[in-house]
Amino acid sequence: MPTNILSKEQYLEDRNNLIEADRSLRRDRASIQARSALEAEADEIIRRIRTEEATSIWRAEHPDIPHPFPGMEFLTGKQVIEETRIFEILSRMPKGALLHIHIGATVNTRTLLALALQQPAIHIRVPQLLSVENISSVLPEFMSLPTGSYNLDGESVSSNEYLPNTWVNAARARERFDPSLGGPEGFDRWIVNAMTLTPLEAYGTHNTVTKRLVHFLPIFKQYLRIFLLASVDDGISYVEVRMDFYFAKDLISADGKRTVTHREVLELFDATVNEVKGELVRENRGHKFLGARIIYTAFRALDPKDLYYYVDDCLNLKKEFPHIIAGAAILDRLSKRSLNQTEPGFDLVGNEDELRPLIDYIEPLLYFRKRQAQESVEIPFLFHAGETLGDGNLTDDNMYDALLLGTRRIGHGFSLVKHPKLLQACRERNILLEVCPISNEVLRLTSSMPTHPLPTIINHGVPVALCSDGPSVFGNMGLTYDFFQLLVSSEITGLSTLGVLARDSIQFSMMLTDEKQIALEIWEAEWSEFLQFIVAHYKQ
Amino acid sequence: MPTNILSKEQYLEDRNNLIEADRSLRRDRASIQARSALEAEADEIIRRIRTEEATSIWRAEHPDIPHPFPGMEFLTGKQVIEETRIFEILSRMPKGALLHIHIGATVNTRTLLALALQQPAIHIRVPQLLSVENISSVLPEFMSLPTGSYNLDGESVSSNEYLPNTWVNAARARERFDPSLGGPEGFDRWIVNAMTLTPLEAYGTHNTVTKRLVHFLPIFKQYLRIFLLASVDDGISYVEVRMDFYFAKDLISADGKRTVTHREVLELFDATVNEVKGELVRENRGHKFLGARIIYTAFRALDPKDLYYYVDDCLNLKKEFPHIIAGAAILDRLSKRSLNQTEPGFDLVGNEDELRPLIDYIEPLLYFRKRQAQESVEIPFLFHAGETLGDGNLTDDNMYDALLLGTRRIGHGFSLVKHPKLLQACRERNILLEVCPISNEVLRLTSSMPTHPLPTIINHGVPVALCSDGPSVFGNMGLTYDFFQLLVSSEITGLSTLGVLARDSIQFSMMLTDEKQIALEIWEAEWSEFLQFIVAHYKQ
Repeated sequence: MPTNILSKEQYLEDRNNLIEADRSLRRDRASIQARSALEAEADEIIRRIRTEEATSIWRAEHPDIPHPFPGMEFLTGKQVIEETRIFEILSRMPKGALLHIHIGATVNTRTLLALALQQPAIHIRVPQLLSVENISSVLPEFMSLPTGSYNLDGESVSSNEYLPNTWVNAARARERFDPSLGGPEGFDRWIVNAMTLTPLEAYGTHNTVTKRLVHFLPIFKQYLRIFLLASVDDGISYVEVRMDFYFAKDLISADGKRTVTHREVLELFDATVNEVKGELVRENRGHKFLGARIIYTAFRALDPKDLYYYVDDCLNLKKEFPHIIAGAAILDRLSKRSLNQTEPGFDLVGNEDELRPLIDYIEPLLYFRKRQAQESVEIPFLFHAGETLGDGNLTDDNMYDALLLGTRRIGHGFSLVKHPKLLQACRERNILLEVCPISNEVLRLTSSMPTHPLPTIINHGVPVALCSDGPSVFGNMGLTYDFFQLLVSSEITGLSTLGVLARDSIQFSMMLTDEKQIALEIWEAEWSEFLQFIVAHYKQ
Repeated sequence: MPTNILSKEQYLEDRNNLIEADRSLRRDRASIQARSALEAEADEIIRRIRTEEATSIWRAEHPDIPHPFPGMEFLTGKQVIEETRIFEILSRMPKGALLHIHIGATVNTRTLLALALQQPAIHIRVPQLLSVENISSVLPEFMSLPTGSYNLDGESVSSNEYLPNTWVNAARARERFDPSLGGPEGFDRWIVNAMTLTPLEAYGTHNTVTKRLVHFLPIFKQYLRIFLLASVDDGISYVEVRMDFYFAKDLISADGKRTVTHREVLELFDATVNEVKGELVRENRGHKFLGARIIYTAFRALDPKDLYYYVDDCLNLKKEFPHIIAGAAILDRLSKRSLNQTEPGFDLVGNEDELRPLIDYIEPLLYFRKRQAQESVEIPFLFHAGETLGDGNLTDDNMYDALLLGTRRIGHGFSLVKHPKLLQACRERNILLEVCPISNEVLRLTSSMPTHPLPTIINHGVPVALCSDGPSVFGNMGLTYDFFQLLVSSEITGLSTLGVLARDSIQFSMMLTDEKQIALEIWEAEWSEFLQFIVAHYKQ
């Protein structure tokens, strides 16, 4: 960048060179240079529609949404997003793999409720009489009762005769829900609201009402099936779910009488995945779904000495089910402590002071690595780290440990851009960030997409896969919403960038090499079909 | 970062090395290694108080401020900031140079009003009768009338007999302001509110009421004097003010009869600076103030061909007043177009579509450089650029032009962190960012300090000076508030970091080499006194 060029032509040439150099680290560069005329045309179309809709949709009047803009707070702007053609188009995009999602928050809450109501074992209780005034603040509690303890003819939780804190069959409670509270539909609204974050609640504490339902084995199986099928419908061909084995111990058998072993959970998982595969093959959609694996996850409130049990458990399960265990995310959801203290995360359990950084667990983690080496078993680390606004706090520092422990991906890495050496390490060592834009925004790490660090991460050449994190809570089912938010967050980013992220999600998954190969070939064919669809329908 | 270390000791050593490497680009590293025991102790004290006050002040109940937190929106949290000991301490810190402030927004609005009321030439009008209902939305208009046109006995603007849009002497309007509107004090409240951004208004359009007052030469002179003295009281020893010569043509002489030439403005500026210097010398505070310069600024809505006039004008003034013209910020306030369209900036004048990026002016700017070379006059560029949430929009792209044109500093550079090559260029070529954290937040580029890119900029080793931008509008008089916001935005940052920023503000100013030397020597002595003060008063 010399300072004494004086001709305009020379200046403009230097300018183009500088812009190109500045963008040279982006992972979409090679792919843009090599892209087909078809992809270039589809990209142009998407850019045009994005620009048009910035005015035609986002500057139009929307009742109850003052001042909408592309990339605005998701829970408030969601209905506007759904009006756009960009959203309609992206819903058809082949999205590759979903690499970061917590098993307890995967399925639409209305669907989960419907599943629960089919189970006579599922009961409900409330701590006080329900009224029009308190219904939006009283949270229901669910439980699968053992056969023999069912209460199939109790009063509904809305009845004046209801004795607070007694269990009533959920379907019956719904059926007889008081008309003044909306009857059965009022019951559904109440439960769904209690399981979902609303814009107002996003700033406050949220109690997960869903856990007891998901943990009842007959529901769990259907729930998993629905999650996998819904993912396929959104263009996702492979998933890795984080399953927290601290909570998995709460799984309850069909008869409600005993907890379920970890082996049984994995067997059930395996059977369900195979069932879904078979179902899709029969519908001639076999190529749309390549499978699912579990990321073994332990809870961050554990005393470090208790982690040894989980480490050994994970190792044993991996040896027995090598095709199911994708990796280990020993600690999880550490980061919410770093949010403004007024805005706790949505599923923190336990006292804040009990939550620990990775460094506290360094001994069991080094032991884990040693045992893997001894047993010739490889269980890649896939740590959460840097899901924080801090710069030098414990959650931020977790990224140093994740890297030193050889993490293959980083869950979130929201604060990564603050750290020049870590940025460089992720780029050079090909460590992918599982970025969850909507989750981050709803949990108030950022106030809108234009202020999210994702464009910075992409410009610095760090591999990224978009993930939904906890869609049943945030309302971002599938990956279409998250891809939408990315597309409106940067004018450099276009359709080819989205394609690169989808490809990388496959490349950085824990599939085996030949599985990846097949997944990529299928993806390329679907991508090509997708581009043709865009050009056929939206060319002017 | 090997992946097979197995001893904890080795791990911890690697970890420290990685953290040190990650922080090695920070400009405070050398200074921390070399700092005195006194500075280390003072830094420790500041960190302790910051931690304590995060609970004792920020988690306490504050009427009307739900959920306060350190680094929250400035206009809402300001009164809490003022309760802290950190603020009290920082108000005594020697802050070095103030490098980015717009002349029209430098002085406390209450003071400006008092100045105006002393001038019989200053008149006021309103477009409609004032009432309790409309007073918060009706904006006053001021004007300095020529001698002979004074209206010293008209009705007050609050009187039923007042004829809308007629000029009334401002002092008389105040004196006779209707008791139902609060009388003279109600008048003051009305005017001050109209000149200041409130939390609610920060999201809407703001009309600058002040311009006509500042442009009346007798007020301008006093205004400048007050600004310089107030800066000195806040620990600022040197200032470079951006003066917009597109608007300077609106300056009106004492008799109200003619506009003032640019030469006259510079003479007045020079005389006022010298007066203030003399005054401080007489008070034995001569060392507290080293001077002030003007950054010649043109308006971004100009047709490119009209910029030639300003370029020549700047060159001629520089030749005549080499000690006053610090540099050229040919274009200014470009960036507000990139804010969400619902949140325009506070002093945009003219239609949005008329506003232009730097690249539109490339020909007159290259001509400017050529003329400087021909005439052997050096007028450093000090461009605004990157004051945007965009990634690849016109305002963001201005940074490429600023760098290619050889800018010595960048005003804002808010989006710099998105651009790896530009980050590197600023670091390696020593281009300082004039960062205005409170301005950025009030104008909604960021929702709070923890989400501001400043910690990222500092970690990447780009030189930074903190600036107030438009304190009379944002309420961040002096630099204490901005230093406060920096200190609570990162746990890595401490007192030594603030010292480095203050030193850099001197180092990267447009003072001459020997002036800088003197400024630095004085600053070091004051810094040492400041550290002693902290230890003497706050040691436990």
